[in-house]
Amino acid sequence: MTDQAKLDAMLDALDQGRDAALNRLCDLLRIPSISTDPAHKADVRRAAEWLRDELAGLGFQASIRDTPGHPMVVATSQPGGARSILFYGHYDVQPVDPLHLWDHPPFDPQIADGQIRARGASDDKGQLMTFIEAARAWKQVHGALPPGLTLLFEGEEESGSPSLVPFLRDNADELRASIALICDTGLYADGRPAIATQLRGLVGQEVVIRAADRDLHSGSFGGLAANPLMILCRALAALKDDSGRITLPGFYDGVRDLTDQQRADWDSLNFDAPEFLSRVGLSQPIGEQGRTGLEMIWSQPTAEINGLSGGYTGEGFKTVLPAEARAKVSFRLVGDQNPQTIRQAFQDHIRRFVPADCTVEFHDHGASPASHMDTSDPAFDTARAALTQEWGRDTAFIGMGGSIPIAGDFKTILDMDSMLIGFARDDDRIHSPNEKYDLDSFHKGARSWARILAGLTLPG
Amino acid sequence: MTDQAKLDAMLDALDQGRDAALNRLCDLLRIPSISTDPAHKADVRRAAEWLRDELAGLGFQASIRDTPGHPMVVATSQPGGARSILFYGHYDVQPVDPLHLWDHPPFDPQIADGQIRARGASDDKGQLMTFIEAARAWKQVHGALPPGLTLLFEGEEESGSPSLVPFLRDNADELRASIALICDTGLYADGRPAIATQLRGLVGQEVVIRAADRDLHSGSFGGLAANPLMILCRALAALKDDSGRITLPGFYDGVRDLTDQQRADWDSLNFDAPEFLSRVGLSQPIGEQGRTGLEMIWSQPTAEINGLSGGYTGEGFKTVLPAEARAKVSFRLVGDQNPQTIRQAFQDHIRRFVPADCTVEFHDHGASPASHMDTSDPAFDTARAALTQEWGRDTAFIGMGGSIPIAGDFKTILDMDSMLIGFARDDDRIHSPNEKYDLDSFHKGARSWARILAGLTLPG
Repeated sequence: MTDQAKLDAMLDALDQGRDAALNRLCDLLRIPSISTDPAHKADVRRAAEWLRDELAGLGFQASIRDTPGHPMVVATSQPGGARSILFYGHYDVQPVDPLHLWDHPPFDPQIADGQIRARGASDDKGQLMTFIEAARAWKQVHGALPPGLTLLFEGEEESGSPSLVPFLRDNADELRASIALICDTGLYADGRPAIATQLRGLVGQEVVIRAADRDLHSGSFGGLAANPLMILCRALAALKDDSGRITLPGFYDGVRDLTDQQRADWDSLNFDAPEFLSRVGLSQPIGEQGRTGLEMIWSQPTAEINGLSGGYTGEGFKTVLPAEARAKVSFRLVGDQNPQTIRQAFQDHIRRFVPADCTVEFHDHGASPASHMDTSDPAFDTARAALTQEWGRDTAFIGMGGSIPIAGDFKTILDMDSMLIGFARDDDRIHSPNEKYDLDSFHKGARSWARILAGLTLPG
Repeated sequence: MTDQAKLDAMLDALDQGRDAALNRLCDLLRIPSISTDPAHKADVRRAAEWLRDELAGLGFQASIRDTPGHPMVVATSQPGGARSILFYGHYDVQPVDPLHLWDHPPFDPQIADGQIRARGASDDKGQLMTFIEAARAWKQVHGALPPGLTLLFEGEEESGSPSLVPFLRDNADELRASIALICDTGLYADGRPAIATQLRGLVGQEVVIRAADRDLHSGSFGGLAANPLMILCRALAALKDDSGRITLPGFYDGVRDLTDQQRADWDSLNFDAPEFLSRVGLSQPIGEQGRTGLEMIWSQPTAEINGLSGGYTGEGFKTVLPAEARAKVSFRLVGDQNPQTIRQAFQDHIRRFVPADCTVEFHDHGASPASHMDTSDPAFDTARAALTQEWGRDTAFIGMGGSIPIAGDFKTILDMDSMLIGFARDDDRIHSPNEKYDLDSFHKGARSWARILAGLTLPG
């Protein structure tokens, strides 16, 4: 059998096995693996065990790996193949409150109208099962698992992943691969297949400015004594000039221009910024003039005030000069912007506004650089072609405005690029009542992985 | 007997009657007239009754005047005299918590080390009794009360004076006089006698800027969607230029230069701004360059942020673009600055920063112009001379940075200037545990009023 014939056979097997695959997904969805709720600790473990058993049944070397929190599931196939692959998904789910807003019990999956409805259907059990089903079809056709494959399933993604980084560190040699596949994202807004190739980084910083040693009466002291709220406002306002450009010296060092390919890809998405903003009651893009909406959220860095407080904020009025003012400020980073350099530039900026008789204190909250995948790795074109073929629509390399910590961790700890490929849709109501996954996402997702695996693991 | 001989006789009577006067003050101090605490409602009334009885005993037409809150006490002497006078004080007191910080029960007055210690000793029972003692001495020497005198004692000053304005309105004809004497302030910092002749006004304004219809994820929307905290910071920061001058168009219209007399008076006070600031842990005056410290707090207007809140302000960090941001902003006004004009200029200023897809909402909180007394009224020189004679130190016409609402109300409702004269000292611990009043303040205060009454009520 040619490689193409084998692929066709796999796709055929997936088509034939649709109902059985759906039944397996329903089994997993019935386990209420809510990781943030201690009452469900045993359920989370049960989901891990279910996965281990499922994978062992397919021929993986599969094991449950305990952590201080919920366990990891790790499964490996036989060595070999053109490149080694680490696949990541998570088997824990979000809480289900408010329960009365669900149309059915959240852990009793309902199949109707081309959808499967349950907590975790889309995030992330349905997605991770697309990959397992592809592996199953591979085994069926090849008589063996896809070679060089490691699967890592986490049980704490919805509760902050406290055990993930130590686990990656402790098991780096085992987990490191040529490339990582992360299946926890979606199709592009209009349903086009997409591979996220760049994610913005983040620096978070809390600032506390203190002036007098107590709150002062604005009659007795106003006009003479420093007001830390005014100092803070002036300092934060000066972070941007009138055109919206961030003023920190050297801030834009490392920001990259889009490649022609990216620009073409992004333009082809026909992103309509006013329409996108209209979904949240807004209409006007605020980024630098001349930038497209997608550049503003994907490839341009930001400076944002995420929280600010000081003085009297209750009902009515109090003519107080507050003793202190606090702000939480974050920067979304792109390209090679260095989080530590930017943190330092920000602190220097703030200090310039703080008079000699006031003090400023900083608290660091997170610092991660942007992730830019090396799309010159042929794996990206392989995956793009596979997705395009499966979905019958051009696949786009897209950006993401937020950070996906796992991708950064894979890069930092395992020195491995990731392809973020997923089949969720914007209307899947993840984290909300009546979460669903389209049956099409599930089925074509599995077929997509079959194609991608064929492209990645077979030589040539 | 000449007028001077009569005055000497009054002063002599006050000297002879020191102990009896102190006993009377102790009687009043023993009544726990805490106006803000409903549990002390009857005590507040008892204090009013005590005053009414005391004043009736002196020959005043004295009555308790009920209000929706605590009662007023109004007492009038016979008509006549060179000018009519309204004297104001308040007989209610602050709460006493935390009780364990008191060295003695707060309503059991202690006399020691030249001080009388009790809640209300300085604020304001001791002060109002200085005037009653002066009236008593007058009666003793003249055989009749000082002519043309009305006394108004309030029982709600420490709880926001809710009944005062309606009471003034309803009884305007009865209360209107040539001049008001308000005894609820202190000597100047170094113990010099002082008459406050100007008070800053106030405009308070709450601002709410709303952007998206929900909190947004700063990864998905940051750089594209408006951040109301950033808008608010930029708008508020732009209220002042780098020299500290307020930028609202027309803001300084009506700000007056100091008169030569004022400048001489204020310079003579040797106000040491860094020393004053050092008491609250600061050192650097922030006002416009070239202004003295007293100008900054007395005769220059201000723009202050009294409170600001928006976004996530709890522990840790949340990368949110908040849906709204709120600030409470106030302006201290001087001269003829118009509160409504400034409120409007402020609103116009803020609106210029709010993009078309965001909204701004304003809530008004108070608007009172500055009070500048007409010191060309000879009453001021009369009082100044009387105080200088009593205290053996030059009396200063001073300003006050805060508003004293009663002075504004007398002006607005009764078209009457006030002389704010008091004998409290900076270390009297008003509103705090172990409040005290110097026996010297009490005694020389009474003697001061005898001199002032002689100067004001006698023709020529």
